[in-house]
Amino acid sequence: MTLSNSEADDIAATAHEMADAVRPVVLQHFRTSGLAAANKDEAGGFDPVTIADRAAEEALRDVLRRRRPDDGIIGEELGRSTGRSEITWVLDPIDGTRAFLCGIPVWGTLIAALHGGRPIFGVIDQPHIGERFIGGFGQAILQRGSDRFPLKTRMPVALSEARLLSTFPEVGTAEEQAAFHNVSRNVQLTRYGLDCYGYALLALGQVDLVIEAGLHIYDIAAPIAVIEAAGGIVTNWSGGPITDGGQVLAASSQVLHQHALELLRA
Amino acid sequence: MTLSNSEADDIAATAHEMADAVRPVVLQHFRTSGLAAANKDEAGGFDPVTIADRAAEEALRDVLRRRRPDDGIIGEELGRSTGRSEITWVLDPIDGTRAFLCGIPVWGTLIAALHGGRPIFGVIDQPHIGERFIGGFGQAILQRGSDRFPLKTRMPVALSEARLLSTFPEVGTAEEQAAFHNVSRNVQLTRYGLDCYGYALLALGQVDLVIEAGLHIYDIAAPIAVIEAAGGIVTNWSGGPITDGGQVLAASSQVLHQHALELLRA
Repeated sequence: MTLSNSEADDIAATAHEMADAVRPVVLQHFRTSGLAAANKDEAGGFDPVTIADRAAEEALRDVLRRRRPDDGIIGEELGRSTGRSEITWVLDPIDGTRAFLCGIPVWGTLIAALHGGRPIFGVIDQPHIGERFIGGFGQAILQRGSDRFPLKTRMPVALSEARLLSTFPEVGTAEEQAAFHNVSRNVQLTRYGLDCYGYALLALGQVDLVIEAGLHIYDIAAPIAVIEAAGGIVTNWSGGPITDGGQVLAASSQVLHQHALELLRA
Repeated sequence: MTLSNSEADDIAATAHEMADAVRPVVLQHFRTSGLAAANKDEAGGFDPVTIADRAAEEALRDVLRRRRPDDGIIGEELGRSTGRSEITWVLDPIDGTRAFLCGIPVWGTLIAALHGGRPIFGVIDQPHIGERFIGGFGQAILQRGSDRFPLKTRMPVALSEARLLSTFPEVGTAEEQAAFHNVSRNVQLTRYGLDCYGYALLALGQVDLVIEAGLHIYDIAAPIAVIEAAGGIVTNWSGGPITDGGQVLAASSQVLHQHALELLRA
């Protein structure tokens, strides 16, 4: 079923209200010296959860409770709840907790609305820089203060001219890392350490590819909406739609997407 | 010879004037779609030089020509000139050209004043975020708009709790990479892709170690001044002073510096 214009407007307004509400909550914790990181990785790795993460997700949910109590929610920190409407919100209060802990402003608050299981509206908000990347319902913009810039993926370039981003050099498993390097060694340059900000830069036309593995749906739902609205393509490494995270290939153009896909599968 | 207070004030004021002058020059090129990158790496790698780099260094030199024509200059793009005063300026108009090309705001303008071959005042300026990290002459501050925050390295932590930054996962040669990983596998977390912003975050008390190799003097002179002013330590991988770039170990505390040094040499 298609959404009415008023429903679309309400979803967009709710997403902005959530992003506004969460900014002071996370900024109050960013770059404070006492930020404690509890470890939630039971396998013994380091998956930091801070007080800021939980407080931020509460702030996001408060807005939904008030404005759209019938919608479903999938949140990174506080779990899933099924709704009675057609909309499910996917929330990652602080994507890039490691960057957050290190004071690096490439983390972001991710807010996405799913309809029929597909992201139809997304926000990538970077509160420290004050940048909000928005995509969906015919909009694709970067908002910073009162400035607005169009989001549009870069013109198609040859793979040898492409700029590739990822978060971890390990990428995922050893096999996934090898596939990644099949692409990486054929591009102009590769940069690491970007978290959600990498997807925002792809939507802004600054880079051509983002390739990651081991993602969760809350890491990628908002980026999908923003990148698709900006003219880009996001699929899994088989070229199919992303339904629950995992391997992600985001590209600025169809031709580059095909090229990268072939190398990932080789 | 010690510098007079008025000479110190003039050096600091000149550095600020340079950083102010260069901001609009670089920002006018940041995130533009037409930014061309010429390749200056004759060995066939990718070392991008943009129009912005050269224009920015000209803007820095214009200020020196007017305010302090007798000082020496070492600039990344436009070479060296010997001065008639005791001061030599070390300039990197855009440290992190790759980050700049990708739209990632962790590049910076680096300005340092050397006296007796040692950095005595330094500025790391990040124009897009609007952050200026300043160290020397008893000052250690982060300036953002009208806000000022003290720069102070983090309290000593155990190596297992330390946060480590570097720019490239390859670090340098295979041997240098192996030494780096001796440290990396013993810390809490490692992040890549930071350029000069990593040193700024160390001065701000957000991370504990920055380890790099293959640097030039213009990459590290300003970070040395800023980090030392904030209470940190910067040496080469033998624990000696950095005279011309190369291998760099920056640490938040003496004890962590010693620990990392032992692992780099092991």
